[in-house]
Parts: sequence; structure tokens; C-alpha cells
Amino acid sequence: MKENRTAPPLERPDLTLPCVILDRPQMAENIGSVARVMANFGLRDLRIVDPRDGWPQERAWAMSSGAHWPLDNATIYETVAEAIADLNAVYATTARPRETQLPVRTPRQCADDSYANAQQGLKTGLLFGAERAGLETSDIALCHSIVTIPVDPAFHSLNLSQAVNIVLYEWRLKVMDTPKEAFTKNMDQPAALEKLHGLYGHLEDELEKAGFFFPPEKKESMQRNLRVALNRAQLTEQEVRTWRGVVTALVKGRGRSLLNQTPQ
Amino acid sequence: MKENRTAPPLERPDLTLPCVILDRPQMAENIGSVARVMANFGLRDLRIVDPRDGWPQERAWAMSSGAHWPLDNATIYETVAEAIADLNAVYATTARPRETQLPVRTPRQCADDSYANAQQGLKTGLLFGAERAGLETSDIALCHSIVTIPVDPAFHSLNLSQAVNIVLYEWRLKVMDTPKEAFTKNMDQPAALEKLHGLYGHLEDELEKAGFFFPPEKKESMQRNLRVALNRAQLTEQEVRTWRGVVTALVKGRGRSLLNQTPQ
Repeated sequence: MKENRTAPPLERPDLTLPCVILDRPQMAENIGSVARVMANFGLRDLRIVDPRDGWPQERAWAMSSGAHWPLDNATIYETVAEAIADLNAVYATTARPRETQLPVRTPRQCADDSYANAQQGLKTGLLFGAERAGLETSDIALCHSIVTIPVDPAFHSLNLSQAVNIVLYEWRLKVMDTPKEAFTKNMDQPAALEKLHGLYGHLEDELEKAGFFFPPEKKESMQRNLRVALNRAQLTEQEVRTWRGVVTALVKGRGRSLLNQTPQ
Repeated sequence: MKENRTAPPLERPDLTLPCVILDRPQMAENIGSVARVMANFGLRDLRIVDPRDGWPQERAWAMSSGAHWPLDNATIYETVAEAIADLNAVYATTARPRETQLPVRTPRQCADDSYANAQQGLKTGLLFGAERAGLETSDIALCHSIVTIPVDPAFHSLNLSQAVNIVLYEWRLKVMDTPKEAFTKNMDQPAALEKLHGLYGHLEDELEKAGFFFPPEKKESMQRNLRVALNRAQLTEQEVRTWRGVVTALVKGRGRSLLNQTPQ
């Protein structure tokens, strides 16, 4: 397939295509296989967080079987938080749902959701962990849902590119099965994660000052639990502003008069 | 996954499991990847027709990530006709349906059919062609149906083990017969509304004292907007307690020392 080196024209320019995010991938071969799978199923935006062996890597291109465009245009990040900052929703694929209170979706349900987002111009991220280590719990807590591929529990070690393959296959089925007529919801769009994380940081700073995180060794899990609950709310940008106002009001408002109240 | 070397017990001894047949595979690595995928999705009978580099091949075991049993028990044949002689139905997967008069099925339809066979004690074969050459027309003519994976026509070169992965994923979905719940079973129930309204009242009282609801005529709609966002989060009872603690901490905690902090 040496002839396939540049991206083919978009089949559905009306859709905001999901991106694939690989967190700390170890093998360049797997990154190349992921690029090939992305080309098979019509995706092109590849984001790589802290690749073990650096970037670019020749072996990725060699394994892509000519699907060079996701690799040529791949963007590199230091953290998952940075890689997902501009996205509206992120699905973390993991074989073992952790002890989080995030909803667990099948690959098919993930495709349904991603497609609904894509029709509304919202960008979805499909996040996959490192080959052996998987995803950090703290990174999963940044996501909206967990996607679990229904492997045999007796042998759940799925190759990274095979996991991507299945999630993207369901995406393509959804694209093919759905007529183009979009019905747009009246609901406002969820805020970009960067705004949401601003709210989290604000809240957590104030709670820290208030001595809420006690005992200190529980701070991380307490923070995660707060974030997970707020993630589920899918706050809009306006709501994020409102909730920042709530935090400010609770912290500073006591004793103030209405006249001194600064507008939110 | 070094510990996984022998087949786990059958999950569904009532089903006659399909077998996977690889026709003239070239790369031992791909055979190993196929074994891993078979283990992921609960299949174990692997048949190999005329492997290019002979058999056995160490690289297949190395790539199987511990899924040794399909390789250890693989059977080798000279022709497709011999490999399928004992089967009741065979599905040939190919990206490009040829000029045959065979019905073309999706992977999902193939799983439906294979499952119906499996319940009746009939053995289905899932046949995949060589990496580049694909299947011979004369071998396809021995089959009952063609399975086509819905790849982007602009880049239809699917890796052999990825093709197997998708067909077997659909098989497993069928076995699991997945109307999956959106939330995990072990996820806690959303809190009773009375608890939730206690949180709302607590928050709103404090915001009232802080002068947050300004101008006063907007209080009702501001309250409603806060409640709507929190409703979407579907907080559990534990989370309601946590968030009441958050409100208390923000209001009262400022300036307190950790020692004085009341437990939440």
C-alpha cells in the first residue's frame, strides 16, 4: 500500500471526527498499527502522550502499511490533561474498570455517543493506556466514561492496536448506519475540559486552604471522587462560570453586604 | 501474561465453538497475534493452511502474549478444502467481495449465524486469506458466505489479525448477548431525592447568606440552574455527604487549622 501516504478526502465533512489519544505507548510498532487502523476506519487525528522511545520513530511508519498521515500529523503531549484540554468528552478504554464512579460504556455505546457529539460539532477523545500499565487512575478521573471491550476474563490482555481497532470499528459502523440528517439538540455544549479543569483547580485550592483534605494521604482520592461526580454533570461553559461563582461566594461572601458583592 | 499457557475452562460448554482458519499466512507474528485475539474472545481451535515459513515458528509464540494453547494445538493442512472438510459452514472474510454468487454478510450477521450453528452443535469455520494475496476465488467458492469488514474504501488494507479481531469480537458480543447497562452493577445507586434536596437547601442557604443571589428577582432561576446541573451528576448518597462537606468546608474552613477540622 505504498501509494497511500496522504489523507484521502473526508467522507463526511459534516462530522467533527473523534481523535485517538495514546498514553505513554511503549512500542513504535503499535503506534504504527494504530495509524493503520485509524486509516481503515476513517479517523486521522492522533495524539501521543509521552511516548517511551521518543518521537518520531521510523518503526511506526514502517508498520503503518502506508497510512502515514495520522503519523505525519501526530501531536505530542507531556500529560493526558494537556492532550485532552480542547476536547468536549473523553472515553477511556480499559479492560478493568477501576473503582471509579464513572459510567461504563460498551464500544458500541461509545460510538453512539461519539457520533452524537460529532453531529453537534463536539470533539470526542478516545483514550488508550500504555501496553502493560494501562491508564493511571488519576487520568481516568479526567474522563467522562470508561469503555470496556468484552474480552474473556480468563485472558483479558488485549493488544493496544486491537483495542483501538474495535472501538474504531464501532465508530465506523455507526457512521455507515446513520443517515446524514443530523438532529441538533437544543442543549448547550459541554464545556471544553480546560474550563472544567479550571473549576476543579479553583475548588480544590479553596478546599485545600479550608483543610478539607484530611487526612492528607486521602487527598488524591478525595479529589478524584469530587472530579468524577462533576464530570458526570457535563457542565456547560456557562455552568462552569456559575459554579466558579458559587465557590467564590461560599469562600468570600460571608459577611459581605449585597452592595459590595462583585458581579459573577 | 506468562502464566497463561494452557486453555482456561470453557465458559459455555453447551456451544460448539467456531474455528479460525488461516490460509497461507506469511508472517508468524500475525499467527501469534491471531492466537492472542482468539484467547481474548474465547476461541481455541486454530487451523493453518500451508504457512509460508513452515510450522512451528517461535515468533508466533513470542507474539501471542501467553496465549499458547491455540498455537500448541494448531492443526496444519495443505489445502483449504482439507482444513474445512469436517465443518458445517464456512465464512470467508475478504475486504473485496469477488465475482461470486455468495451472500455477503457483515461481521455481526456472521456472528448471528455462527451462534445459531453453535447452539445446534454445528461447527463453523472462519476463514481468512493471506496477508497480501487474500483468498483464492476457488477457495472462496468452497464457502457458504463472504464476510466483509466495513473499512474505508480509500484504505482497505486491514492487517490479518485485526480482521480476525473484529470477526471474533462480534462472536463474543453475540455470546454475551449484550444489552449492557449504562452503569456498572457495582456502581452505587443515585441518592434519594430527599438527600439531594437537603444538599441543595444547604448550598442555597449558604449562597443566600453570601449574597450570591443577585439581583433578588433572579434568585429562582439561578437556583434552578444550579439544581439542574447537579441533577445531571446523579450523585450517590455518599457523594451527597461529600458535597455537603465541601460546602461546609468552603464556608467555615477558611482560617481553621487542620486540628480543628471536624470529620466529614
